[in-house]
Amino acid sequence: MVNPFFKNNGPFKILEIINFLNIKDNDLNKNIEIQDIKDLITSTDKDITFFHSKKYVDIAQKTKASFCITAEGLKNSLPNSCTPIIVDNVLVSVSKITSLFYPDSISDDFDENVTIINDTKFKNKVSYGKNVLIGKNVSIGENCKIGHNTIIEKNVTIGDNCSLGSNNIIRNTLINNKVKILDNCVIGKHGFGFFPIKNQNLRYPHIGIVLIEDNCEIGCGATIDRGSMSNTVIGKNTFLDNQIHIAHNVKIGENSIIAGQVGIAGSSIIGSNVKIGGQAGISGHLKIGNNVEIGGGSGVIKDIPDNTKVMGYPAKNIKEFLKGNR
Amino acid sequence: MVNPFFKNNGPFKILEIINFLNIKDNDLNKNIEIQDIKDLITSTDKDITFFHSKKYVDIAQKTKASFCITAEGLKNSLPNSCTPIIVDNVLVSVSKITSLFYPDSISDDFDENVTIINDTKFKNKVSYGKNVLIGKNVSIGENCKIGHNTIIEKNVTIGDNCSLGSNNIIRNTLINNKVKILDNCVIGKHGFGFFPIKNQNLRYPHIGIVLIEDNCEIGCGATIDRGSMSNTVIGKNTFLDNQIHIAHNVKIGENSIIAGQVGIAGSSIIGSNVKIGGQAGISGHLKIGNNVEIGGGSGVIKDIPDNTKVMGYPAKNIKEFLKGNR
Amino acid sequence: MVNPFFKNNGPFKILEIINFLNIKDNDLNKNIEIQDIKDLITSTDKDITFFHSKKYVDIAQKTKASFCITAEGLKNSLPNSCTPIIVDNVLVSVSKITSLFYPDSISDDFDENVTIINDTKFKNKVSYGKNVLIGKNVSIGENCKIGHNTIIEKNVTIGDNCSLGSNNIIRNTLINNKVKILDNCVIGKHGFGFFPIKNQNLRYPHIGIVLIEDNCEIGCGATIDRGSMSNTVIGKNTFLDNQIHIAHNVKIGENSIIAGQVGIAGSSIIGSNVKIGGQAGISGHLKIGNNVEIGGGSGVIKDIPDNTKVMGYPAKNIKEFLKGNR
Repeated sequence: MVNPFFKNNGPFKILEIINFLNIKDNDLNKNIEIQDIKDLITSTDKDITFFHSKKYVDIAQKTKASFCITAEGLKNSLPNSCTPIIVDNVLVSVSKITSLFYPDSISDDFDENVTIINDTKFKNKVSYGKNVLIGKNVSIGENCKIGHNTIIEKNVTIGDNCSLGSNNIIRNTLINNKVKILDNCVIGKHGFGFFPIKNQNLRYPHIGIVLIEDNCEIGCGATIDRGSMSNTVIGKNTFLDNQIHIAHNVKIGENSIIAGQVGIAGSSIIGSNVKIGGQAGISGHLKIGNNVEIGGGSGVIKDIPDNTKVMGYPAKNIKEFLKGNR
Repeated sequence: MVNPFFKNNGPFKILEIINFLNIKDNDLNKNIEIQDIKDLITSTDKDITFFHSKKYVDIAQKTKASFCITAEGLKNSLPNSCTPIIVDNVLVSVSKITSLFYPDSISDDFDENVTIINDTKFKNKVSYGKNVLIGKNVSIGENCKIGHNTIIEKNVTIGDNCSLGSNNIIRNTLINNKVKILDNCVIGKHGFGFFPIKNQNLRYPHIGIVLIEDNCEIGCGATIDRGSMSNTVIGKNTFLDNQIHIAHNVKIGENSIIAGQVGIAGSSIIGSNVKIGGQAGISGHLKIGNNVEIGGGSGVIKDIPDNTKVMGYPAKNIKEFLKGNR
Repeated sequence: MVNPFFKNNGPFKILEIINFLNIKDNDLNKNIEIQDIKDLITSTDKDITFFHSKKYVDIAQKTKASFCITAEGLKNSLPNSCTPIIVDNVLVSVSKITSLFYPDSISDDFDENVTIINDTKFKNKVSYGKNVLIGKNVSIGENCKIGHNTIIEKNVTIGDNCSLGSNNIIRNTLINNKVKILDNCVIGKHGFGFFPIKNQNLRYPHIGIVLIEDNCEIGCGATIDRGSMSNTVIGKNTFLDNQIHIAHNVKIGENSIIAGQVGIAGSSIIGSNVKIGGQAGISGHLKIGNNVEIGGGSGVIKDIPDNTKVMGYPAKNIKEFLKGNR
């Protein structure tokens, strides 16, 4: 369920792909067709994958992909069934190939193909405000409200009994039932992911979506970015206060409570029944357990096990923090 | 002056109230009429009140209310004139009763009953931009400006010589004279107050308003939530920079200066002539004195007396902070 | 290039200026014409300047201005060619004179003189959404996109190949080529600069602009204030994540990367190739060198030399920070 909304432009012949990367490789069977680009684990023999760090040797050895973008020093870990394609920068090449398969995942220009809701099939189904715009590939369930000036851009599914406020901008997002989204939110835009290149950075593709589960509430001014190679998820009955930033690929569990102005950096995984105080920040690629409480203003820079209370910058056990600050 | 905007649906007979709570109590005189739900101090003998913590024993002993929602262990502190009604969770029951008296105080769905300003009595009185919407029960004084796409939802009073920017959303708010509100603000929505309940949290009612006094300036992107049982107040000539979050029930004094991205959690009281540096955070239920200076980035987790300069996380005397960080 | 957009209402006779300040000075040659108000260094003999702190004695001694607003204790540092005008509060008087020359630089009320883009010369040139508004003195280059509800107020120049999202409000801003601005940004409003005066603060003029150079990306919900006496600058290929606040007069170099919810206070200068982690804050009037890395959540309160990694609050060398926090 990574990319229900992005159309795969493939298949491409392997020759087209290596030409696109400006690589010459005379040993390849150039007419083999590639269906998709996937990670080492989920690839099938119709796909191309990528392998960029020794951390992934174990899963690289078992990949089923037929081709793999990798570096000279890593290629020997691949099985014989997988032909290495050697590049200078693996992630940049992956980004380029992904953009070949999913050209819509790079650009987040405004959606030009929206229609005022009065002229859509939702006219008599939804309770809506002034100036509401609806993009293509949008579905909306029963008994929903959409406030003034809200723009539902392309690729949005909204369940039943949802209430959206005014001035929101939403795309590439799956909203389940009984969800409340207050005002001024931007949900489903690409994340802050790119390769820094002097004079002109290279954005990497974001083929994930934002998934907001049942009974969630999203406060005013939230920004929730969609995932790059996976989804951004807000679990059931999790409540977000105002002015919160949730970066790409973040996953938050159920019944969690996140106070105002919190920021969660890319790819961190937050458990269920977690409470995060106002203005706390959580670095990227961390794992925060279940039933964790994070004090307001904390800066979390390492994983936190289940059932722990932390506070401080860097965040530590709350008793230790309070003892050190009498 | 707690709730000038919320219509009281009462009176209700005490029988209706206890039925609504699913309580059986055969000893009650079931036909007594209750006018309102109020706190221990302001209740009259026509009201029902609530008592949920030993902290309030002293005032509970003096309440004039005829009925009181409370717990078994607390009921003996009430005067004989006040009949206890025993419940499992006092605050949840209070929330339910409040929603009975003030059903509009729970839901903050977008206001469906707005009209484009050109079609209102304000057409020739106010200087306004494109697409300005006006709700019911709105009054606007002399010489005011309202920018493009701004939505003045129901229950808003604006004084004279006010300048509102574009893309604001305002409801349940009383704005005095010469106030400036820049752009993209959301003012008067309910706060982040609810009872956490697995799978479906229960919002508690917000029957307070936001009061913004003379000569204030509110920066871009502010969120100022209305109060739950009291008001949120921004005192005279207090200036707020951009991206500030003011939670429900917060009261800020006069002539204070609050820099960008500051957050003030629920029910804290800030004095007059206070300066708060950028990104500082103030926990809930604190009392910050007059003439206090709080350094940028500070995290305030306890009360601060008058005439004090603090900095750090947790915030301490600024000399101590700087000494400890040479 | 400080104020390409603000019309200078001068010249004024020196008599008019001192009358405006309510000063009597019978020794002045009252008919001398003053063209502009400038700082000590850039003034010519047609200008009035100001000198308010001993820090500037060296440059005061060399000013070419004919008149100088200053204090009794400073006047003797001025050259004979410069006539001192003694006032009680130098900066307040400067503010008043600036508002005389540049009356538009004080007020930031919404722009009443905008036109729906369909009725402008940009109708067939720009790719635009619904409800886009365009002010006076706006120019837009080739191949640009402007999203729904975006308001380009007066005094905006946009280069070629720019993509602006929806719900943005922009004024007094110069945007170069290939710039992306996502959604809900407010760019070019005056900064949080004013003289605190009991009961009614006095805003000081902002005659600077915001300059955004080639290939920049500005995330959702950004607020970027224009400069007061100089410009606010975002250098080439610098990327800003969501919910960032850039105060007046800030200058950021090229190829820098600034993560979500960062705030940079007024007049700080940030170098090139700088990386700033999420939620970091930088105090005002600081100088951050090139190739600096600032950890997420840091609070920077002093200058940082080139090629340094810092973290913490207050920010210190990152090794020291991590050592102290094991």
